[in-house]
Amino acid sequence: MAANDSLAQFLSSAVDAAKKAGQIIRKGFYETKHVEYKGQVDLVTETDKACEDLIFNHLKQLYPTHKFIGEETTAANGVTELTDDPTWLVDPVDGTINFVHGFPFVCVSIGLTIGKIPTVGVVYNPIIDELFTGIRGGGAFLNGNPIKVSSQTELVKSLLVTEVGVERDNVTVDATTGTINRLLFEVRSIRIGGSCALALCGIACGRLDLFYMHGYGGPWDVAGGAVIVTEAGGCVYDPSGEELDMTSRRVAASNPLLKEAFVEVLRESE
Amino acid sequence: MAANDSLAQFLSSAVDAAKKAGQIIRKGFYETKHVEYKGQVDLVTETDKACEDLIFNHLKQLYPTHKFIGEETTAANGVTELTDDPTWLVDPVDGTINFVHGFPFVCVSIGLTIGKIPTVGVVYNPIIDELFTGIRGGGAFLNGNPIKVSSQTELVKSLLVTEVGVERDNVTVDATTGTINRLLFEVRSIRIGGSCALALCGIACGRLDLFYMHGYGGPWDVAGGAVIVTEAGGCVYDPSGEELDMTSRRVAASNPLLKEAFVEVLRESE
Repeated sequence: MAANDSLAQFLSSAVDAAKKAGQIIRKGFYETKHVEYKGQVDLVTETDKACEDLIFNHLKQLYPTHKFIGEETTAANGVTELTDDPTWLVDPVDGTINFVHGFPFVCVSIGLTIGKIPTVGVVYNPIIDELFTGIRGGGAFLNGNPIKVSSQTELVKSLLVTEVGVERDNVTVDATTGTINRLLFEVRSIRIGGSCALALCGIACGRLDLFYMHGYGGPWDVAGGAVIVTEAGGCVYDPSGEELDMTSRRVAASNPLLKEAFVEVLRESE
Repeated sequence: MAANDSLAQFLSSAVDAAKKAGQIIRKGFYETKHVEYKGQVDLVTETDKACEDLIFNHLKQLYPTHKFIGEETTAANGVTELTDDPTWLVDPVDGTINFVHGFPFVCVSIGLTIGKIPTVGVVYNPIIDELFTGIRGGGAFLNGNPIKVSSQTELVKSLLVTEVGVERDNVTVDATTGTINRLLFEVRSIRIGGSCALALCGIACGRLDLFYMHGYGGPWDVAGGAVIVTEAGGCVYDPSGEELDMTSRRVAASNPLLKEAFVEVLRESE
């Protein structure tokens, strides 16, 4: 049981780091922000950088042999390859646009992969104080209470969440709204919340039935949420139905009962 | 000051009614729902009906000479004309789909019109405990703290919220996604939250910069929020830029600085 013990310890360390980062996010949430532009609509704030430093320092001190991949360091230093080593994937502020505008769908996302498999996940929204956690083989929780995916079996009764991403070229935008158009005939309704990690957690706790997104930032957006969805009884997969490749920037999630039908309409909608 | 005193009293009564209804909503939020179908994707639950009864009974007892228009009674009994008399417009559960799915953007919306002008507004989200209030000439508040619209002046830095409504014919869906397509090139990003009244409150407190929607349910969806936006320094108008007609089922809102540019792109996008 040493392995499980250490997974529990990894989770506990990640929760500590997420809660500390959450204090910084909460403080910055109501202040005027100093915003740098990464791209046309992608934003990076002082808070992103401060939170990534805090989380990395916290975890590196405890686990000096582990590897670390973060959104901000990757943006600054280039891509770090994901290896079989225990690797922490961190998005210090997922939902940066929401953070800048004061829209309360903002979270810290921390995932630990071992042998490239998402194994520990923490997604914390400090604004409405919701802490989602998961350990591979150990269940998924919201503020300590077990969660599970919805039991919905019909697309037409399903609530779908997606994101419009940050790219604004004609091909991407046409594909984005074309897919939304076709899906509106298949599902009950559509939500766009502005946080990939919180969308995954919405699937995990059954608030949302279907999620897909093309063009998320990087594996740090999905590593934490993937564990939580899987441990809540759900599936995380490539929109084609194939296995998830976290570096492909394409993701879909649902309960197992909806997966086949969802993949079929996603294929038809592309 | 007698007039203002009584407006304050109307507000206080509406807050009491909203909070009582909020208790019922909070209780029902985590339970399995008994859902009737009003239309393809419009849902009505026991909670909607219980909340409308509670709010109407509460206010009718206090103000027996006032008129009342509610979503559920209108659905059952047909449209009641809006007159110059003091009239309470009530949506007992705005965001019914969210309520059914457990997605926490759900609210009670209560508006009082006098001489057809929205004069008192209460929008209460009992799940995350946010109470938005406004009195004509008396300011707008979130949980008792003054709020104001954003100071954004550029569309490209603006966060837009819209809704996809409940109609799923080809013409409506094509118009909906066509407008989203064209707006994606003009604004920073788009959110879809599933509650018209909470979208208006998001504009009022500056979390969101731009809102438009075609095809909301009825005047009960906007009467409360309209007072709150206006008192927070914002504008509520027809997407054409003309004066709002609450019965037209078309609405737009923003700060005054963005209105002209927003109306222009809305016209071009239709």
